[in-house]
Amino acid sequence: MNYSIIAIGDELLIGQVTDTNSGWIARHLTPYGWNVKSVKVVADDAAEIFRAIDEAFEQTDVILMTGGLGPTKDDITKPALCKYFGGSLVHDEATAANVLEVVAKRHIKLNDYTRAQAMVPSSCRVIQNQVGTAPIMWFEKGDKTLVSMPGVPHETETMMLREVIPQLIKKYDSDIDIEYRTFIVIDIIESELAMRLDAFERSLPTYMHLAYLPQPGIIRLRLSGASASAELVNADMDKYSQQLHALLGDNIISDQDRSLPEIVGDMLRKHHLTVSTAESCTGGNIAHVITQVAGSSDYFLGAVVSYANEVKENVLGVSSHDIAVNGVVSEPVVRQMVEGACRVIGTDCAVSTSGIAGPGGAVPGKPVGTVWMAAKCNDRVVAQCCHLPGDRNRVINRATTEALKMLYKLLRELD
Amino acid sequence: MNYSIIAIGDELLIGQVTDTNSGWIARHLTPYGWNVKSVKVVADDAAEIFRAIDEAFEQTDVILMTGGLGPTKDDITKPALCKYFGGSLVHDEATAANVLEVVAKRHIKLNDYTRAQAMVPSSCRVIQNQVGTAPIMWFEKGDKTLVSMPGVPHETETMMLREVIPQLIKKYDSDIDIEYRTFIVIDIIESELAMRLDAFERSLPTYMHLAYLPQPGIIRLRLSGASASAELVNADMDKYSQQLHALLGDNIISDQDRSLPEIVGDMLRKHHLTVSTAESCTGGNIAHVITQVAGSSDYFLGAVVSYANEVKENVLGVSSHDIAVNGVVSEPVVRQMVEGACRVIGTDCAVSTSGIAGPGGAVPGKPVGTVWMAAKCNDRVVAQCCHLPGDRNRVINRATTEALKMLYKLLRELD
Repeated sequence: MNYSIIAIGDELLIGQVTDTNSGWIARHLTPYGWNVKSVKVVADDAAEIFRAIDEAFEQTDVILMTGGLGPTKDDITKPALCKYFGGSLVHDEATAANVLEVVAKRHIKLNDYTRAQAMVPSSCRVIQNQVGTAPIMWFEKGDKTLVSMPGVPHETETMMLREVIPQLIKKYDSDIDIEYRTFIVIDIIESELAMRLDAFERSLPTYMHLAYLPQPGIIRLRLSGASASAELVNADMDKYSQQLHALLGDNIISDQDRSLPEIVGDMLRKHHLTVSTAESCTGGNIAHVITQVAGSSDYFLGAVVSYANEVKENVLGVSSHDIAVNGVVSEPVVRQMVEGACRVIGTDCAVSTSGIAGPGGAVPGKPVGTVWMAAKCNDRVVAQCCHLPGDRNRVINRATTEALKMLYKLLRELD
Repeated sequence: MNYSIIAIGDELLIGQVTDTNSGWIARHLTPYGWNVKSVKVVADDAAEIFRAIDEAFEQTDVILMTGGLGPTKDDITKPALCKYFGGSLVHDEATAANVLEVVAKRHIKLNDYTRAQAMVPSSCRVIQNQVGTAPIMWFEKGDKTLVSMPGVPHETETMMLREVIPQLIKKYDSDIDIEYRTFIVIDIIESELAMRLDAFERSLPTYMHLAYLPQPGIIRLRLSGASASAELVNADMDKYSQQLHALLGDNIISDQDRSLPEIVGDMLRKHHLTVSTAESCTGGNIAHVITQVAGSSDYFLGAVVSYANEVKENVLGVSSHDIAVNGVVSEPVVRQMVEGACRVIGTDCAVSTSGIAGPGGAVPGKPVGTVWMAAKCNDRVVAQCCHLPGDRNRVINRATTEALKMLYKLLRELD
């Protein structure tokens, strides 16, 4: 089944807020074999909304729309949809009761604006929003369906899972079987990878496709197959996945769509090891990405962010002499930092970073982007110096990835 | 000047990668009075790309396109554009030289794929990409212009700033003066804010507009004005900004578009104070957002992430008796954590968190989302308990925001 997404909001269009709903919707409909044909972001403007709906209905029977339903003046989606599908705005008792219930749960007062949420187009069927005040509106016109949802991500996500996806699948059941497998690949650049996989890609049957999804320091390969025969897709997926493993060997660090912190976490748990971090230029970001993973308290015990040299010396025990002689961005310092982290936090493993994230801080011989890092696993300690491109945030994120990759490789030695 | 954005890529469409280019482009063209009419995301598919170009040119004279230019097989933008604008793919000497230079700088090998970047449509003018191998292609057809740029954010950002924006402004100079002011507002929910500003909004002249951009825990208000008279816009901006300040008082914590960590950093710098963090459930995220700000080493000295109770006790000096009696998610614990952070890291100020980010970890009386937090500034210590909605990441992010807001309010007492 093909569908279109329309995201409404001046704030999305001018880039003050990033549209995450569209990606979320696509990720969650893909497993059902639903293909998004286009995502369009438009302003809070009735004419633009009409134009986007017309264009989308020309291409697909289903439109999923988010945003423009808030209680404030700059949201005009509801009257626009009412005009498009006909009828008038009417007071809906069930919606009013739902608004009251949601407002009461949040311990906030009902006011004219939240009250206005109970006015809905007479041409739609309302799906009550269980986690917010803006109703989900389901419009139909012949074979075509438009579902309007709030812009607030957790409201749209919750209601998509609970109501919208099941109702869509029920109405437009698809008989095509689609399968995806994702492989996480490191230590090879995209163009080299493409050369190595050239013959492989040409050997794929027409209904299979390999996509490259490069991220800084990591490439995700997505192998997809779509066919009416689930058996055929499954067998071919297995066959070509094995070929990929044979071609890429240790470059593949996971054949599930898992993040690097999840992969490292799996290894730590498997080997019953604990981890800590000692961070200077990454400023706590490594600890942050490790603890974004649910259950990370099984192996992550803590971190010391040692931004100031005094903290490196006094808390982590880095030698002030070594800092004076080698500079704070140096191998002896990051080696002492991992040792210090394991000692102070009491862990088996640790990673450390000391570098120049920029824009200031460069010294002769050490430009912005120079990052020393170390990883320790039991008695093994390794260190490396990276020269990372980009602005402050890119350096921080890339250093985080590289440090976790170092730790991953140490952990792999234990397998 | 109106323009459209088209972002190309299966990975964007199916949500495996989030399109950040479009928002970046809009944010950086807005100050020139350029309005984006729509953002459309389409697949790596020639027919879809043609359709998107036709639709966009129907509405605007300028299209800015990103993505689909990588060296690998799944990128088909270049031949599609060649077909759309006519001519054929030809080898371009200047582009070949540029690819060689970029490849040499990165210490990678030239291969067939990077070499193919030098093939460009004869119908375009090439702007050499100074930070990557994919050329920027400038197509013209009558009054209409399409600029095709790479999908890699830092390449598009760099080349937009250096070449594309100046060349666009030169070609389509605009005589409309547009001004924006952003106000950061806390401690009031959107619907209450809308009620308080109802009369104000109705009093705005027709060429001015107030937009609400709510984020978890914070609302950004954007006042915009567009007129041929720069003087008029300026005077009215001043007048209505003053009215907003009078209406919202201390709810406004900044009248510049700054992030909360930047606002807190400004206050710390102004009062010559240093800060640290002691984090449990936020796992280093507060330190991370503080250190995302360039120059934060002026006031941020370090952090202790004390995920395990032993780290709270041994490193931060939290009383094991208090943990046993009150639980680790409790007021005495977070108070001792800020004291510990100031002592161990050696700072004037600190924030701390201890809570249940979920999905596991709930205990009777303390459901997922329960977060105790404290802030210390010189001798003043305050603590509060928040019940935060949402999944693990939302709880972590919201707790980070609430902790920084506590610190902000302590710092404001010093003004």
